[in-house]
Formats: sequence, C-alpha cells, structure tokens
Amino acid sequence: MTPNDPRLTSFIDVSPDCHFPIQNLPFGIFSTAADPAPRVGIAIGGQVLDLAVLAEAGLVKTAPEGIFARPSLNPFIALGRPAWRETRARISELLRHDNPALRDDLSLRSRALVPQAQARMHLPVEIGGYTDFYSSREHATNVGSMFRDPKNALMPNWLHIPIGYNGRASSVVVSGTPVRRPNGQTKAPDAEFPSFGPSRKLDFELETAFILGRGNELGRPIPMAEAEEHIFGMVVMNDWSARDIQQWEYVPLGPFNSKTFATSISPWVVTMEALEPFRVAGPVQDPQPLPYLRQTGPQGFDLHLEVALRPAGAKSETVISRTNFRHMYWSMAQQLVHHTISGCNTRIGDLMGSGTISGPTPDSLGSLLELTWNGKTPLVLEGGEERSFLQDGDEVIMTGWCQGEGYRIGFGKVSGRIEPAL
Amino acid sequence: MTPNDPRLTSFIDVSPDCHFPIQNLPFGIFSTAADPAPRVGIAIGGQVLDLAVLAEAGLVKTAPEGIFARPSLNPFIALGRPAWRETRARISELLRHDNPALRDDLSLRSRALVPQAQARMHLPVEIGGYTDFYSSREHATNVGSMFRDPKNALMPNWLHIPIGYNGRASSVVVSGTPVRRPNGQTKAPDAEFPSFGPSRKLDFELETAFILGRGNELGRPIPMAEAEEHIFGMVVMNDWSARDIQQWEYVPLGPFNSKTFATSISPWVVTMEALEPFRVAGPVQDPQPLPYLRQTGPQGFDLHLEVALRPAGAKSETVISRTNFRHMYWSMAQQLVHHTISGCNTRIGDLMGSGTISGPTPDSLGSLLELTWNGKTPLVLEGGEERSFLQDGDEVIMTGWCQGEGYRIGFGKVSGRIEPAL
Repeated sequence: MTPNDPRLTSFIDVSPDCHFPIQNLPFGIFSTAADPAPRVGIAIGGQVLDLAVLAEAGLVKTAPEGIFARPSLNPFIALGRPAWRETRARISELLRHDNPALRDDLSLRSRALVPQAQARMHLPVEIGGYTDFYSSREHATNVGSMFRDPKNALMPNWLHIPIGYNGRASSVVVSGTPVRRPNGQTKAPDAEFPSFGPSRKLDFELETAFILGRGNELGRPIPMAEAEEHIFGMVVMNDWSARDIQQWEYVPLGPFNSKTFATSISPWVVTMEALEPFRVAGPVQDPQPLPYLRQTGPQGFDLHLEVALRPAGAKSETVISRTNFRHMYWSMAQQLVHHTISGCNTRIGDLMGSGTISGPTPDSLGSLLELTWNGKTPLVLEGGEERSFLQDGDEVIMTGWCQGEGYRIGFGKVSGRIEPAL
Repeated sequence: MTPNDPRLTSFIDVSPDCHFPIQNLPFGIFSTAADPAPRVGIAIGGQVLDLAVLAEAGLVKTAPEGIFARPSLNPFIALGRPAWRETRARISELLRHDNPALRDDLSLRSRALVPQAQARMHLPVEIGGYTDFYSSREHATNVGSMFRDPKNALMPNWLHIPIGYNGRASSVVVSGTPVRRPNGQTKAPDAEFPSFGPSRKLDFELETAFILGRGNELGRPIPMAEAEEHIFGMVVMNDWSARDIQQWEYVPLGPFNSKTFATSISPWVVTMEALEPFRVAGPVQDPQPLPYLRQTGPQGFDLHLEVALRPAGAKSETVISRTNFRHMYWSMAQQLVHHTISGCNTRIGDLMGSGTISGPTPDSLGSLLELTWNGKTPLVLEGGEERSFLQDGDEVIMTGWCQGEGYRIGFGKVSGRIEPAL
C-alpha cells in the first residue's frame, strides 16, 4: 500500500475529522519545554512525531545525520524529492497499526511522541523570498468593482498574467503569533491632507501558499513541464491587510506598509504528495494563456477552506467564510512559471501566496473587505456582535482540508489575535 | 587625527582621483585565485587589504576570531557600531604612512595586500530583504508626466509618503555579473492581446542603496531619533528595468517581472562614518511631513553620480548622465522610519534602494526612459551610435563619489553587460 492508501491505519488514535491521519504526515518545526531546540516533527493524530529522536534511534535513515535536528526544514528539503518521498514512506510504515517497531517500544514512544498541546510550533522554513499572487478571479473582480469600475472590474492584464508582487519575508510569522494593529498614514476622500494613527480597516486575507522545494538559477526560467517538481508543499496563510493604509499608499508601486506588518502561516507543511489524490480541474481559462503558461491536466486541488472570527471574551468562534481552493483561476505551477519567466531565481524555502481566495457566493469571500463590502454591510457574529473590520482582541482562525473517504488531509489552523496599536 | 582627517596619508599609493584613500576604508567581500574562500577586505588605493590575514597576524583585534574570514559582512556588522568604528580606526592607523607595523613587514604585506585587479568581488552582505524606494521628486515627476498627466505628474500621496515597495532579494547581484535580457509579456497600446518575447525597452536605473547595520523587532518601529544609527553604509545600485514589461504588469500591485531579473550593486560598502563630512541639506519639504517623518539637520549627502554606457566593441564609454544624491527629496532616515512605522521588522544586511536619482537638468536623469523620453529622443554616443534603450552587449557603468579637498570618498563602480535573451 502506498502512503496515500485510504485503507491505512495507525496505532496512533486518529478521529475521522482529525487533520493528521497516517495519509497526511505533514512536516513542521517544533520544540518542547523539556527540549527547547527547534527540530523536525511530523503531525499524526493529536501528536507530534519527533524525527530527530527517530533518526537517533536508527529507525529513520532517509537523511544524513543531524538533518532532522535542524531548526528549519530547509536542509531536509534541499535533499530533494526522493528523500521527501522516502521519509514520508518510512514514517508511514513506522506508524502503521501492524508495525511493532515503534508501536511496541514504549520507551522510544515516550521520547518520540509529544502531544501537540505540549509542542511549540515554529516557522517551518527559513523564507528567503515571499511572493504574493492575486489569482482568484472572484476576489479581483470584487476589489475592482469596489474601487474602480464594476463594468470593467478586472484589469486588462488580469486574464493574461498571474499577477503577483514581492512581499516582505521578514514579517512572515507562525500561527499563534499576536498581530499588532499597525499605525500608518490614511487619507479620507474629502480630506486635504493625510492623517496618522492606528488602521481602522484592519482585515485578513484567506490564502494558501506553497513552499519551494527546489530553486532555479538566475537567468534560467522554470519551464511548465518541470514546475510542479519545484513545489514541496502547502500551508494556509493569513495575509493581514490594513485597507485604509493600502488605499492611500498603493499607487503606483503596490501595497507596502499595509501588508508588511505581519503575514501568518500554518505550522504544518502538507506535502504535494499527500495532496495528489485531491486534484481537480481548475476553471476554464479563456482567453487561452500565452504558450509559456499553458498547462494540461487537472491543475487545481479540492481544498476546503474556512475562516472563523472570535471576539475577545466570546465563548465561541463564528465561521464567517467557507470556500475552496478549486476556484483559483491561476494554478501554482502557472504562478511559479510566470515568476521565473524573466529569469528571476528562486530558492528552497521561498513562500508563494495564492492571493485572497474568494468563491462565487456571498458566504465564500476571503476577506472582510468583500464580506462587508468595504464596511457597508457588517457581519453579525454569534452572540450578536457586529464586525465591519477587525477590532482589538479579535482572533482570526483559518483552516483547510481535503476530504477523503473517512479521513481528512488537513492543514490544522493558522490563527492570530489583534493587539492594540502602540 | 580621526580617520576622516583630510591630512591623513597612507604608505599605500593613492592618486587624488582614486576612490579609496585612507579616509574611506570601505568594506567588501573578496576572494583570490590563490585563496578562493570569500572573506572580508577593505579597499585602499588599488589594493584590497585582507582583514582575515591581519586578524590572524594579531594586528586587528576589534572582532572575535574568525569574523573576518566569513563570506559575508553580516557577522561583522552584527557586532554593532562600536566595532565598526574601532575596526575602521584601527585599519586607518595601520595604513598611515608613519606606522611601521604593516608598512615595514614585507612578508605580511605580501599576504595582506592584494591588487584589486586580482581580487574577485562577491556580494558584500547576505540580503534578507530588499526594498526599493521612489524618492527623487524629479524622477517621479518625469514618469508621471510621461505616463499619466503632466499637469498632475506627482501622485497625491508622493509628497507625504516616501513611497517604496518590496523588491526581490534573490536576484541582487554584485557588479560585473552579466545581465540576461528578460523575456516577458508586453502589449502594444493598439494590440488586442499581449505578446511574448525579449524586452525591447531594457533600461537601467541609477540608484544608491543603504545597508542595515541594526534591525528592529516586529511591532517596534524605529523612531526618527534612532534611524541613522541603524544604517551601516551605502552602495551604488543599478535597478535594471524592462519598461515594456513593467508598463503591462504594474497595475495594481506594482512592478514584478520587469525588475526581478537582476539588480546590481557595487561591491564596496562605504560606511556612514566615511560619508559624514559630506552631509548637506536636502530639498525643502513642503508640505511639512507628518510628525513621525520629521527630521532636523542636514539629511542629504553631496554625492556625485555618473552613468556611462559602452556598446559592444566600442573603444570608449560615454558618460550619459551626471547627477547628485543631494537632490533626493526623502532621506534614508525617512525611508527607514516609514518602512517600519507599521511595525515591519528589518534585519542586518537588508538593502534599501533610493529609487532612480534624477536631477533637475536634462543631462542629470537617472534612466534611459527619462534621458530619451521613452525612446522619443535617442541619445547619441561617442562614435555615433544611437540608443533609445539598451542593446545586447551594452555595458552600463555607474559610479559615485564625494569630493573632498584633494581626495575622493568613492564607491568604485557597479557595471553589468547585457546578454541576449534566451
């Protein structure tokens, strides 16, 4: 049986709606109070499996010594796809219900398995470059309708170019990191001069992002036929955005302070191998893209996504958006090919965001900007509170999963709580 | 005498127009055929002084062991300003004409001094983040006149915000690295669809850039009073740009493929300490900036800049632009303060570009876009060749210096030659 086989079960308890069954095996970086050195782990059920411990015990030999004891996945990723596959296959084997090697070694189990509640998660990769795309047609249309012309909502270039821009890598943080409301310049339409203060239109953007598993040299674009080979895996991402700052600053060079204060990612990197069974056709691309961007076969993934919001002190969170990655117009391969077509080089660990993922219905929009139509139609949360944009103390929780028969290949959560401005 | 004293002379021969007198002492990373390990050097006259050799010989003790043997300046920079000052002061002392310690130790001199012609220069810093600003009023006005409305050439935000955007750090290269003409999408104004091919409007942008010597934590903006303390030094930079690709892609998220194929920097980082005597007042800022951006005292530098172009096979280069950094509207401190005002963190080695530096006269413009007014008025080079934009084989050579009495604090050169598209 391959590691993706739905019949596989583990001796570790995994409920049907758990994100981390034996078919998933996502990679992350974790530490514990007992051992504060960040190292490589794999999520299984409610546990983290410590690969550094397994390697030391001689049970995993798919990487040179010490690779799993490193504080980022980059050295492991640099080993290449065969090592990723072998490691995942070996871990799958070790976790099977009928394999006694780890199952019956209680001493090793007590050292190699850590409850997720006791693990502190770190950024999984060292991110040399962070790029964010803008590949949801619904999102681009909504934004264009709101701020430009509803009749010509999509810019003329949008159907030809997987539009993207360089983001700020230094402020990418792992789920759970508090997010401070940014101060900045804003200008009301009728004001003569801008004013300074805390953003009053703080927003989230629901995105996924992929992590590069292989780079390319400067001057050597990645051809479409090889593009997917360069992708290691995916995370869920919250591209926090200050709409009022963005509105005033973004012409002509794009968003800057409105985005650079924080971008949160989920801690577990789900491998493309684990996602493979969930491929689906993406939207029809009309007009046909230029030849360098043409891709055959199913290029989307049936990946359910949800956003929930919990105000400070609220008992429960309210799910405020449900959408799916399959709506994305431009695929990850097309984004990557376009990124490098000019000769731009990429590196292992580079993070590339999808852009806000909005679906076709009013309850499937990936930002408050769209859900409340720039604040005009506030959301009502469970408990009765209203929201146009985020308030201090609000926690935004995003999650994503692919639904198999009786199991889920999930991403866990990416969350962040808003702290008051300085 | 301080290391900046104009009366200082070295036992190393330095001509009056040489960029590297004893008053400069810029830091770089170099290697040689005999010792291919990149390491820290300082330029003096036509030589590179090998700091790793001097440290090993016990003559420089201003940094922990091994710091000068590292392949980037980041570990040295991380030691902080006192270590930068002490190192520069110590090297100044060692190079003085009246100090026999190095001067008369012929064996050590033969190991510690390498002719610059025999040194291979590397990127001086590991660049975690590269940001490019847009701070020349003349440049922004020219671009606005060309592509938008000559009557309202400056965008409404320009006089309030030191506009900037995130660039691509991975494709920052050191002077001398060939630059391949990018392929990409362009669309003629009258065409229905875009087409694909080599850029036909390949351009340079004359810039300087500063390198961060101290970072700031996420959520903790750098106040104006501390901003200059965060800057280690400066380089000259060529922000290569494909104008036809830029024109089609840049709305609404800013330039991407048109800029990410290469950005070249000069190899020697001139310290802010060496530049200190050349401070001048910048342009008057009217309207007054918001309080967080207000700066007192002279915030500009009297830094002469030149661009030369040499076609393939040409005997000589033609200087096509002469300008000065003192024209810049927004200062480096203002750029940095604005960058972090939202809480964005920065790191040692981050590179921050000035934006194209154009002066007020037709011969002081910092790009071919402006010099030829988008190709309408080609330049005539020595030898009679004409240029609207760059052709394959063209070499662009930029240089910059501050003129002291009888000496120059110079940056050396940043050059790059255009290779044909793939």
